[in-house]
Amino acid sequence: MSKKTNAAILIIGNEILSGRTQDTNTSTLSLWLNSIGVKVEEVRVIPDIEKTIVDSVNSLRKVYDYIFTTGGIGPTHDDITAQSIAKAFNLKYEIHKEGYKILEKYYKPGEFNEGRQKMIWMPKDAKLILNPTSGAPGFNIENVFCLPGVPSILKSMLGSLKNDIIGGDPILSHTISLRTVESEIANSLTKVQDNNKEVEIGSYPFFQAGKLGVSIVIRSENQNKIDICTSQILDFVKQKKIEVVNRD
Amino acid sequence: MSKKTNAAILIIGNEILSGRTQDTNTSTLSLWLNSIGVKVEEVRVIPDIEKTIVDSVNSLRKVYDYIFTTGGIGPTHDDITAQSIAKAFNLKYEIHKEGYKILEKYYKPGEFNEGRQKMIWMPKDAKLILNPTSGAPGFNIENVFCLPGVPSILKSMLGSLKNDIIGGDPILSHTISLRTVESEIANSLTKVQDNNKEVEIGSYPFFQAGKLGVSIVIRSENQNKIDICTSQILDFVKQKKIEVVNRD
Repeated sequence: MSKKTNAAILIIGNEILSGRTQDTNTSTLSLWLNSIGVKVEEVRVIPDIEKTIVDSVNSLRKVYDYIFTTGGIGPTHDDITAQSIAKAFNLKYEIHKEGYKILEKYYKPGEFNEGRQKMIWMPKDAKLILNPTSGAPGFNIENVFCLPGVPSILKSMLGSLKNDIIGGDPILSHTISLRTVESEIANSLTKVQDNNKEVEIGSYPFFQAGKLGVSIVIRSENQNKIDICTSQILDFVKQKKIEVVNRD
Repeated sequence: MSKKTNAAILIIGNEILSGRTQDTNTSTLSLWLNSIGVKVEEVRVIPDIEKTIVDSVNSLRKVYDYIFTTGGIGPTHDDITAQSIAKAFNLKYEIHKEGYKILEKYYKPGEFNEGRQKMIWMPKDAKLILNPTSGAPGFNIENVFCLPGVPSILKSMLGSLKNDIIGGDPILSHTISLRTVESEIANSLTKVQDNNKEVEIGSYPFFQAGKLGVSIVIRSENQNKIDICTSQILDFVKQKKIEVVNRD
Protein backbone atom coordinates (compact mmCIF):
# COMPACT_ATOMS: atom_id res chain seq x y z
CA MET A 1 0.00 0.00 0.00
CA SER A 2 1.29 3.46 -0.88
CA LYS A 3 2.02 5.95 1.86
CA LYS A 4 -0.83 8.41 2.05
CA THR A 5 0.10 12.02 1.48
CA ASN A 6 -2.00 14.65 3.22
CA ALA A 7 -2.39 18.40 3.25
CA ALA A 8 -4.10 21.27 5.02
CA ILE A 9 -5.40 24.47 3.46
CA LEU A 10 -5.16 27.79 5.27
CA ILE A 11 -7.52 30.42 3.88
CA ILE A 12 -6.30 33.83 5.03
CA GLY A 13 -8.80 36.65 4.77
CA ASN A 14 -11.33 38.70 6.73
CA GLU A 15 -13.56 38.82 3.65
CA ILE A 16 -14.27 35.07 3.95
CA LEU A 17 -14.91 35.24 7.71
CA SER A 18 -17.30 38.18 7.31
CA GLY A 19 -19.34 36.21 4.79
CA ARG A 20 -18.85 38.90 2.14
CA THR A 21 -16.90 36.57 -0.14
CA GLN A 22 -17.70 32.93 -0.74
CA ASP A 23 -14.52 30.81 -0.65
CA THR A 24 -14.13 28.66 -3.74
CA ASN A 25 -10.39 27.99 -3.46
CA THR A 26 -10.88 25.08 -1.05
CA SER A 27 -12.82 23.14 -3.63
CA THR A 28 -10.36 24.04 -6.45
CA LEU A 29 -7.32 23.02 -4.41
CA SER A 30 -8.91 19.87 -2.97
CA LEU A 31 -9.99 18.51 -6.34
CA TRP A 32 -6.59 19.24 -7.85
CA LEU A 33 -4.72 17.72 -4.89
CA ASN A 34 -6.94 14.60 -5.02
CA SER A 35 -6.00 14.17 -8.66
CA ILE A 36 -2.30 14.03 -7.76
CA GLY A 37 -2.81 11.75 -4.75
CA VAL A 38 -2.87 14.25 -1.90
CA LYS A 39 -5.77 14.16 0.55
CA VAL A 40 -6.86 17.40 2.20
CA GLU A 41 -7.55 16.61 5.86
CA GLU A 42 -8.18 20.05 7.31
CA VAL A 43 -9.09 23.55 6.21
CA ARG A 44 -8.87 26.63 8.40
CA VAL A 45 -10.12 30.10 7.63
CA ILE A 46 -8.37 32.77 9.69
CA PRO A 47 -8.28 36.58 9.79
CA ASP A 48 -5.51 38.91 8.53
CA ILE A 49 -3.75 38.93 11.93
CA GLU A 50 -0.02 38.22 11.98
CA LYS A 51 0.06 36.21 15.20
CA THR A 52 -2.84 34.03 14.07
CA ILE A 53 -1.16 33.34 10.72
CA VAL A 54 2.20 32.53 12.36
CA ASP A 55 0.64 30.22 14.96
CA SER A 56 -1.61 28.45 12.45
CA VAL A 57 1.20 27.84 9.94
CA ASN A 58 3.53 26.60 12.65
CA SER A 59 1.03 24.16 14.10
CA LEU A 60 -0.25 22.84 10.75
CA ARG A 61 3.12 22.42 9.02
CA LYS A 62 4.23 19.94 11.67
CA VAL A 63 1.10 17.79 11.31
CA TYR A 64 0.54 17.65 7.54
CA ASP A 65 2.80 16.85 4.59
CA TYR A 66 1.82 20.01 2.71
CA ILE A 67 0.23 23.32 3.65
CA PHE A 68 -1.36 25.60 1.06
CA THR A 69 -2.21 29.15 2.03
CA THR A 70 -4.46 31.39 -0.04
CA GLY A 71 -4.79 35.15 0.18
CA GLY A 72 -2.87 38.07 1.58
CA ILE A 73 -0.04 38.34 -0.97
CA GLY A 74 -1.21 41.49 -2.77
CA PRO A 75 0.11 45.05 -2.43
CA THR A 76 -2.21 46.54 0.22
CA HIS A 77 -1.89 47.00 4.00
CA ASP A 78 -4.07 43.97 4.74
CA ASP A 79 -1.78 41.66 2.73
CA ILE A 80 0.49 40.29 5.44
CA THR A 81 0.96 36.64 4.48
CA ALA A 82 4.59 36.92 3.28
CA GLN A 83 5.85 38.77 6.35
CA SER A 84 3.94 36.34 8.61
CA ILE A 85 5.42 33.27 6.89
CA ALA A 86 8.90 34.81 7.23
CA LYS A 87 8.24 35.18 10.95
CA ALA A 88 6.87 31.63 11.24
CA PHE A 89 10.08 30.23 9.74
CA ASN A 90 12.31 32.80 11.46
CA LEU A 91 13.58 34.03 8.09
CA LYS A 92 14.45 37.54 6.89
CA TYR A 93 11.66 39.36 5.01
CA GLU A 94 13.31 40.97 1.98
CA ILE A 95 13.08 41.78 -1.72
CA HIS A 96 13.25 38.59 -3.78
CA LYS A 97 15.77 39.26 -6.58
CA GLU A 98 14.37 36.83 -9.14
CA GLY A 99 10.85 38.04 -8.35
CA TYR A 100 11.97 41.64 -8.78
CA LYS A 101 13.29 40.87 -12.27
CA ILE A 102 10.04 39.14 -13.24
CA LEU A 103 7.84 42.08 -12.21
CA GLU A 104 10.28 44.65 -13.67
CA LYS A 105 9.80 42.95 -17.05
CA TYR A 106 6.06 42.43 -16.53
CA TYR A 107 5.20 46.10 -15.96
CA LYS A 108 5.69 48.99 -18.38
CA PRO A 109 8.60 51.34 -17.58
CA GLY A 110 7.67 53.51 -14.59
CA GLU A 111 4.75 51.31 -13.57
CA PHE A 112 6.70 49.14 -11.15
CA ASN A 113 5.94 51.43 -8.21
CA GLU A 114 6.38 50.97 -4.45
CA GLY A 115 2.95 49.36 -4.05
CA ARG A 116 3.77 46.73 -6.65
CA GLN A 117 7.24 46.18 -5.22
CA LYS A 118 5.61 45.04 -1.97
CA MET A 119 4.49 41.93 -3.83
CA ILE A 120 8.05 40.64 -4.17
CA TRP A 121 8.98 41.15 -0.52
CA MET A 122 9.23 37.54 0.63
CA PRO A 123 10.88 35.26 3.17
CA LYS A 124 14.61 34.89 2.33
CA ASP A 125 15.38 32.17 -0.26
CA ALA A 126 11.70 31.49 -0.99
CA LYS A 127 11.12 29.44 -4.14
CA LEU A 128 8.83 31.30 -6.54
CA ILE A 129 5.51 29.93 -7.81
CA LEU A 130 5.02 31.45 -11.24
CA ASN A 131 1.87 33.41 -12.06
CA PRO A 132 0.93 33.35 -15.75
CA THR A 133 -2.12 35.57 -15.18
CA SER A 134 -0.98 38.70 -13.41
CA GLY A 135 2.78 38.53 -12.93
CA ALA A 136 3.16 38.61 -9.15
CA PRO A 137 4.43 35.18 -8.07
CA GLY A 138 3.48 33.07 -5.07
CA PHE A 139 6.20 31.36 -3.06
CA ASN A 140 7.19 28.18 -1.30
CA ILE A 141 9.21 27.60 1.88
CA GLU A 142 9.76 23.97 2.90
CA ASN A 143 6.31 22.32 2.87
CA VAL A 144 4.32 25.59 2.81
CA PHE A 145 3.00 26.93 -0.50
CA CYS A 146 1.57 30.46 -0.59
CA LEU A 147 -0.96 31.28 -3.28
CA PRO A 148 -3.12 34.33 -3.98
CA GLY A 149 -6.78 34.62 -2.99
CA VAL A 150 -8.22 35.58 -6.39
CA PRO A 151 -9.64 32.24 -7.65
CA SER A 152 -8.80 32.69 -11.36
CA ILE A 153 -5.18 33.60 -10.59
CA LEU A 154 -4.80 30.76 -8.09
CA LYS A 155 -6.11 28.26 -10.66
CA SER A 156 -3.64 29.46 -13.28
CA MET A 157 -0.69 28.86 -10.91
CA LEU A 158 -1.39 25.20 -10.11
CA GLY A 159 0.22 23.93 -13.31
CA SER A 160 3.66 25.20 -12.34
CA LEU A 161 3.30 23.64 -8.88
CA LYS A 162 2.72 20.06 -9.92
CA ASN A 163 6.38 19.00 -9.97
CA ASP A 164 6.96 20.28 -6.43
CA ILE A 165 4.26 18.08 -4.87
CA ILE A 166 4.89 14.38 -4.41
CA GLY A 167 1.55 12.66 -3.97
CA GLY A 168 0.51 9.04 -3.55
CA ASP A 169 -1.90 7.19 -5.79
CA PRO A 170 -4.71 9.45 -7.00
CA ILE A 171 -7.87 9.21 -4.92
CA LEU A 172 -10.60 7.68 -7.09
CA SER A 173 -14.32 7.96 -6.52
CA HIS A 174 -17.60 6.67 -7.81
CA THR A 175 -20.95 8.35 -7.19
CA ILE A 176 -24.31 6.54 -7.26
CA SER A 177 -27.30 8.89 -7.18
CA LEU A 178 -30.54 7.33 -6.01
CA ARG A 179 -34.18 8.41 -5.94
CA THR A 180 -34.66 7.76 -2.22
CA VAL A 181 -34.14 9.37 1.19
CA GLU A 182 -31.24 8.61 3.52
CA SER A 183 -33.28 6.89 6.20
CA GLU A 184 -34.46 4.22 3.71
CA ILE A 185 -30.90 3.09 3.01
CA ALA A 186 -29.06 3.99 6.22
CA ASN A 187 -28.94 0.46 7.69
CA SER A 188 -27.95 -1.26 4.44
CA LEU A 189 -25.27 1.34 3.80
CA THR A 190 -23.85 0.88 7.30
CA LYS A 191 -23.47 -2.87 6.56
CA VAL A 192 -21.64 -2.16 3.31
CA GLN A 193 -19.31 0.29 5.09
CA ASP A 194 -18.65 -2.31 7.82
CA ASN A 195 -17.75 -4.89 5.15
CA ASN A 196 -15.47 -2.44 3.31
CA LYS A 197 -13.53 -0.66 6.01
CA GLU A 198 -10.76 0.63 3.75
CA VAL A 199 -13.19 2.42 1.47
CA GLU A 200 -14.74 5.76 2.46
CA ILE A 201 -18.49 5.87 1.84
CA GLY A 202 -20.33 9.17 2.11
CA SER A 203 -24.07 9.76 1.85
CA TYR A 204 -25.38 13.16 0.72
CA PRO A 205 -29.04 14.12 0.32
CA PHE A 206 -29.91 16.38 -2.62
CA PHE A 207 -32.92 18.26 -4.02
CA GLN A 208 -33.06 18.45 -7.79
CA ALA A 209 -35.92 19.62 -9.98
CA GLY A 210 -38.22 19.40 -6.97
CA LYS A 211 -37.31 15.80 -6.20
CA LEU A 212 -35.39 14.33 -3.29
CA GLY A 213 -32.44 12.03 -3.78
CA VAL A 214 -29.29 10.72 -2.16
CA SER A 215 -25.80 10.60 -3.66
CA ILE A 216 -23.58 7.84 -2.35
CA VAL A 217 -19.90 8.62 -2.88
CA ILE A 218 -17.35 5.79 -2.66
CA ARG A 219 -13.69 6.86 -2.37
CA SER A 220 -10.44 4.90 -2.37
CA GLU A 221 -7.05 4.76 -4.10
CA ASN A 222 -8.01 1.26 -5.25
CA GLN A 223 -10.49 0.92 -8.15
CA ASN A 224 -11.09 -2.76 -7.39
CA LYS A 225 -12.24 -1.95 -3.84
CA ILE A 226 -14.56 0.74 -5.21
CA ASP A 227 -16.04 -1.78 -7.67
CA ILE A 228 -16.70 -4.38 -4.96
CA CYS A 229 -18.36 -1.75 -2.78
CA THR A 230 -20.42 -0.46 -5.72
CA SER A 231 -21.78 -3.91 -6.51
CA GLN A 232 -22.79 -4.46 -2.87
CA ILE A 233 -24.63 -1.14 -2.89
CA LEU A 234 -26.36 -1.89 -6.19
CA ASP A 235 -27.48 -5.23 -4.71
CA PHE A 236 -29.49 -3.65 -1.90
CA VAL A 237 -30.70 -0.88 -4.20
CA LYS A 238 -32.15 -3.51 -6.54
CA GLN A 239 -33.70 -5.45 -3.65
CA LYS A 240 -35.35 -2.30 -2.33
CA LYS A 241 -36.53 -1.36 -5.86
CA ILE A 242 -34.89 2.06 -5.62
CA GLU A 243 -34.34 3.94 -8.89
CA VAL A 244 -30.71 4.72 -9.83
CA VAL A 245 -30.81 8.30 -11.18
CA ASN A 246 -27.19 8.57 -12.20
CA ARG A 247 -23.74 7.00 -11.84
CA ASP A 248 -20.41 8.69 -12.46
CA MET B 1 -17.70 50.30 24.03
CA SER B 2 -19.69 47.09 23.89
CA LYS B 3 -18.01 43.77 24.61
CA LYS B 4 -17.29 42.03 21.35
CA THR B 5 -18.90 38.65 20.92
CA ASN B 6 -17.11 36.12 18.76
CA ALA B 7 -17.74 32.71 17.26
CA ALA B 8 -16.10 29.87 15.38
CA ILE B 9 -17.71 27.66 12.74
CA LEU B 10 -16.86 23.97 12.50
CA ILE B 11 -17.80 22.46 9.15
CA ILE B 12 -17.94 18.67 9.56
CA GLY B 13 -17.84 16.68 6.35
CA ASN B 14 -15.56 14.71 4.04
CA GLU B 15 -17.52 16.03 1.05
CA ILE B 16 -16.21 19.56 1.65
CA LEU B 17 -12.60 18.39 2.15
CA SER B 18 -12.70 16.29 -1.02
CA GLY B 19 -13.79 19.32 -3.01
CA ARG B 20 -16.92 17.52 -4.21
CA THR B 21 -19.22 19.97 -2.42
CA GLN B 22 -18.71 23.71 -2.21
CA ASP B 23 -19.35 24.96 1.33
CA THR B 24 -21.85 27.82 1.42
CA ASN B 25 -22.84 27.56 5.09
CA THR B 26 -19.86 29.64 6.26
CA SER B 27 -21.06 32.63 4.32
CA THR B 28 -24.71 32.15 5.41
CA LEU B 29 -23.79 31.82 9.08
CA SER B 30 -21.23 34.64 9.05
CA LEU B 31 -23.58 37.17 7.47
CA TRP B 32 -26.37 36.21 9.87
CA LEU B 33 -24.07 36.34 12.90
CA ASN B 34 -22.70 39.74 11.82
CA SER B 35 -26.24 41.06 11.68
CA ILE B 36 -26.78 40.12 15.34
CA GLY B 37 -23.39 41.44 16.48
CA VAL B 38 -21.32 38.24 16.53
CA LYS B 39 -18.01 38.20 14.68
CA VAL B 40 -16.80 34.91 13.21
CA GLU B 41 -13.07 34.68 13.94
CA GLU B 42 -12.25 31.17 12.75
CA VAL B 43 -13.66 28.45 10.53
CA ARG B 44 -12.41 24.88 10.45
CA VAL B 45 -13.38 22.16 8.03
CA ILE B 46 -12.74 18.68 9.42
CA PRO B 47 -13.49 15.10 8.36
CA ASP B 48 -16.14 12.73 9.76
CA ILE B 49 -13.75 11.30 12.37
CA GLU B 50 -14.93 11.15 15.98
CA LYS B 51 -11.62 12.01 17.63
CA THR B 52 -11.11 15.00 15.34
CA ILE B 53 -14.62 16.31 16.06
CA VAL B 54 -14.22 15.84 19.82
CA ASP B 55 -10.79 17.52 19.90
CA SER B 56 -11.85 20.42 17.67
CA VAL B 57 -15.04 21.14 19.63
CA ASN B 58 -13.20 20.97 22.94
CA SER B 59 -10.44 23.32 21.86
CA LEU B 60 -12.71 25.84 20.09
CA ARG B 61 -15.44 26.04 22.73
CA LYS B 62 -12.94 27.30 25.29
CA VAL B 63 -11.64 30.07 23.02
CA TYR B 64 -14.80 31.48 21.41
CA ASP B 65 -18.14 32.65 22.82
CA TYR B 66 -20.14 30.49 20.41
CA ILE B 67 -19.40 27.47 18.24
CA PHE B 68 -21.63 26.49 15.33
CA THR B 69 -21.18 23.07 13.77
CA THR B 70 -22.69 22.11 10.43
CA GLY B 71 -23.18 18.61 9.04
CA GLY B 72 -23.23 15.07 10.33
CA ILE B 73 -26.65 15.00 12.02
CA GLY B 74 -28.50 12.89 9.46
CA PRO B 75 -29.45 9.19 9.65
CA THR B 76 -26.50 7.50 7.91
CA HIS B 77 -23.31 5.83 9.21
CA ASP B 78 -21.18 8.88 8.38
CA ASP B 79 -23.38 11.15 10.53
CA ILE B 80 -21.48 11.12 13.82
CA THR B 81 -21.74 14.69 15.07
CA ALA B 82 -24.25 14.04 17.89
CA GLN B 83 -22.34 11.12 19.40
CA SER B 84 -19.07 13.08 19.11
CA ILE B 85 -20.52 16.13 20.86
CA ALA B 86 -21.84 13.87 23.64
CA LYS B 87 -18.30 12.52 24.05
CA ALA B 88 -16.79 16.02 23.97
CA PHE B 89 -19.04 17.10 26.86
CA ASN B 90 -18.87 13.72 28.60
CA LEU B 91 -22.65 13.33 28.36
CA LYS B 92 -24.80 10.27 27.72
CA TYR B 93 -25.83 9.75 24.06
CA GLU B 94 -29.52 8.82 24.15
CA ILE B 95 -32.95 9.24 22.59
CA HIS B 96 -34.20 12.80 23.09
CA LYS B 97 -37.80 12.48 24.32
CA GLU B 98 -39.07 15.82 23.00
CA GLY B 99 -37.28 15.21 19.69
CA TYR B 100 -38.86 11.75 19.47
CA LYS B 101 -42.34 13.25 19.86
CA ILE B 102 -41.65 15.84 17.15
CA LEU B 103 -40.53 13.27 14.59
CA GLU B 104 -43.30 10.82 15.55
CA LYS B 105 -45.80 13.53 14.63
CA TYR B 106 -43.84 14.65 11.56
CA TYR B 107 -43.78 11.24 9.84
CA LYS B 108 -46.76 9.20 8.67
CA PRO B 109 -47.61 6.16 10.83
CA GLY B 110 -45.03 3.42 10.21
CA GLU B 111 -42.54 5.79 8.56
CA PHE B 112 -40.63 6.65 11.72
CA ASN B 113 -38.18 3.79 11.22
CA GLU B 114 -34.85 2.96 12.90
CA GLY B 115 -32.86 5.07 10.41
CA ARG B 116 -34.97 8.13 11.17
CA GLN B 117 -34.87 7.47 14.90
CA LYS B 118 -31.07 7.87 14.75
CA MET B 119 -31.68 11.57 14.13
CA ILE B 120 -33.05 12.11 17.64
CA TRP B 121 -30.20 10.34 19.42
CA MET B 122 -28.50 13.27 21.10
CA PRO B 123 -26.34 14.27 24.06
CA LYS B 124 -28.40 14.08 27.28
CA ASP B 125 -30.45 17.23 28.04
CA ALA B 126 -29.62 18.86 24.71
CA LYS B 127 -31.79 21.85 23.85
CA LEU B 128 -33.51 21.34 20.50
CA ILE B 129 -33.13 23.71 17.54
CA LEU B 130 -36.36 23.45 15.60
CA ASN B 131 -36.33 22.55 11.91
CA PRO B 132 -39.31 23.94 9.97
CA THR B 133 -38.13 22.36 6.70
CA SER B 134 -37.60 18.67 7.29
CA GLY B 135 -38.54 17.87 10.87
CA ALA B 136 -35.28 16.56 12.35
CA PRO B 137 -34.06 19.14 14.88
CA GLY B 138 -30.54 20.37 15.57
CA PHE B 139 -29.39 20.78 19.15
CA ASN B 140 -27.49 22.99 21.55
CA ILE B 141 -25.24 22.13 24.50
CA GLU B 142 -23.77 25.06 26.44
CA ASN B 143 -22.16 27.34 23.80
CA VAL B 144 -22.16 24.75 21.00
CA PHE B 145 -24.95 24.80 18.39
CA CYS B 146 -25.23 21.85 15.99
CA LEU B 147 -26.90 22.45 12.64
CA PRO B 148 -27.38 20.29 9.54
CA GLY B 149 -25.16 20.51 6.46
CA VAL B 150 -27.89 20.95 3.84
CA PRO B 151 -27.82 24.73 3.20
CA SER B 152 -31.57 25.29 2.69
CA ILE B 153 -32.41 23.43 5.92
CA LEU B 154 -29.69 25.23 7.88
CA LYS B 155 -31.01 28.60 6.68
CA SER B 156 -34.56 27.76 7.76
CA MET B 157 -33.38 26.98 11.31
CA LEU B 158 -31.62 30.27 12.05
CA GLY B 159 -34.85 32.09 12.93
CA SER B 160 -35.51 29.88 15.95
CA LEU B 161 -31.94 30.36 17.15
CA LYS B 162 -31.90 34.11 17.39
CA ASN B 163 -33.08 34.34 21.00
CA ASP B 164 -30.37 31.96 22.21
CA ILE B 165 -27.49 34.08 20.92
CA ILE B 166 -26.52 37.24 22.75
CA GLY B 167 -24.50 39.41 20.40
CA GLY B 168 -22.98 42.86 20.68
CA ASP B 169 -23.71 45.77 18.39
CA PRO B 170 -24.23 44.64 14.79
CA ILE B 171 -21.12 44.89 12.66
CA LEU B 172 -21.72 47.55 10.01
CA SER B 173 -19.89 47.91 6.73
CA HIS B 174 -19.54 50.21 3.76
CA THR B 175 -18.09 49.16 0.41
CA ILE B 176 -16.51 51.56 -2.08
CA SER B 177 -15.82 49.99 -5.46
CA LEU B 178 -13.22 51.77 -7.57
CA ARG B 179 -12.02 51.55 -11.17
CA THR B 180 -8.35 51.09 -10.28
CA VAL B 181 -5.82 48.46 -9.28
CA GLU B 182 -4.63 47.82 -5.72
CA SER B 183 -1.08 49.05 -6.23
CA GLU B 184 -2.35 52.54 -7.23
CA ILE B 185 -4.05 53.04 -3.88
CA ALA B 186 -2.01 50.83 -1.53
CA ASN B 187 0.02 53.63 0.10
CA SER B 188 -2.92 56.02 0.54
CA LEU B 189 -5.05 53.23 1.97
CA THR B 190 -2.33 52.28 4.46
CA LYS B 191 -2.34 55.89 5.72
CA VAL B 192 -6.12 55.85 6.19
CA GLN B 193 -5.90 52.53 8.07
CA ASP B 194 -3.13 53.96 10.29
CA ASN B 195 -5.31 56.98 11.08
CA ASN B 196 -8.35 54.79 11.85
CA LYS B 197 -7.03 51.89 13.86
CA GLU B 198 -10.38 50.79 15.29
CA VAL B 199 -11.91 50.35 11.86
CA GLU B 200 -11.15 47.28 9.74
CA ILE B 201 -10.33 48.17 6.12
CA GLY B 202 -10.09 45.41 3.54
CA SER B 203 -9.06 45.75 -0.10
CA TYR B 204 -10.31 43.21 -2.66
CA PRO B 205 -9.51 43.22 -6.38
CA PHE B 206 -12.31 42.20 -8.74
CA PHE B 207 -12.85 41.54 -12.44
CA GLN B 208 -16.25 42.54 -13.77
CA ALA B 209 -17.41 42.72 -17.36
CA GLY B 210 -13.78 42.49 -18.47
CA LYS B 211 -12.66 45.41 -16.34
CA LEU B 212 -10.42 45.49 -13.28
CA GLY B 213 -11.49 47.13 -10.06
CA VAL B 214 -10.93 47.19 -6.32
CA SER B 215 -13.55 47.02 -3.58
CA ILE B 216 -12.62 48.70 -0.34
CA VAL B 217 -14.64 47.36 2.58
CA ILE B 218 -14.79 49.37 5.82
CA ARG B 219 -16.13 47.53 8.88
CA SER B 220 -16.93 48.65 12.41
CA GLU B 221 -19.73 48.60 14.98
CA ASN B 222 -19.66 52.40 14.85
CA GLN B 223 -21.29 54.13 11.85
CA ASN B 224 -19.59 57.42 12.65
CA LYS B 225 -16.13 55.85 12.44
CA ILE B 226 -17.06 54.26 9.12
CA ASP B 227 -18.21 57.66 7.82
CA ILE B 228 -14.94 59.39 8.84
CA CYS B 229 -12.91 56.65 7.18
CA THR B 230 -15.08 56.78 4.05
CA SER B 231 -14.55 60.50 3.64
CA GLN B 232 -10.76 60.11 3.98
CA ILE B 233 -10.80 57.44 1.30
CA LEU B 234 -12.98 59.51 -1.02
CA ASP B 235 -10.52 62.39 -0.55
CA PHE B 236 -7.56 60.50 -2.01
CA VAL B 237 -9.78 58.87 -4.64
CA LYS B 238 -10.77 62.33 -5.87
CA GLN B 239 -7.17 63.58 -5.79
CA LYS B 240 -6.04 60.62 -7.85
CA LYS B 241 -8.99 61.06 -10.26
CA ILE B 242 -10.12 57.48 -9.76
CA GLU B 243 -13.68 56.61 -10.84
CA VAL B 244 -16.05 55.39 -8.09
CA VAL B 245 -17.99 52.52 -9.67
CA ASN B 246 -20.32 51.81 -6.79
CA ARG B 247 -20.96 52.41 -3.07
CA ASP B 248 -23.12 50.30 -0.79
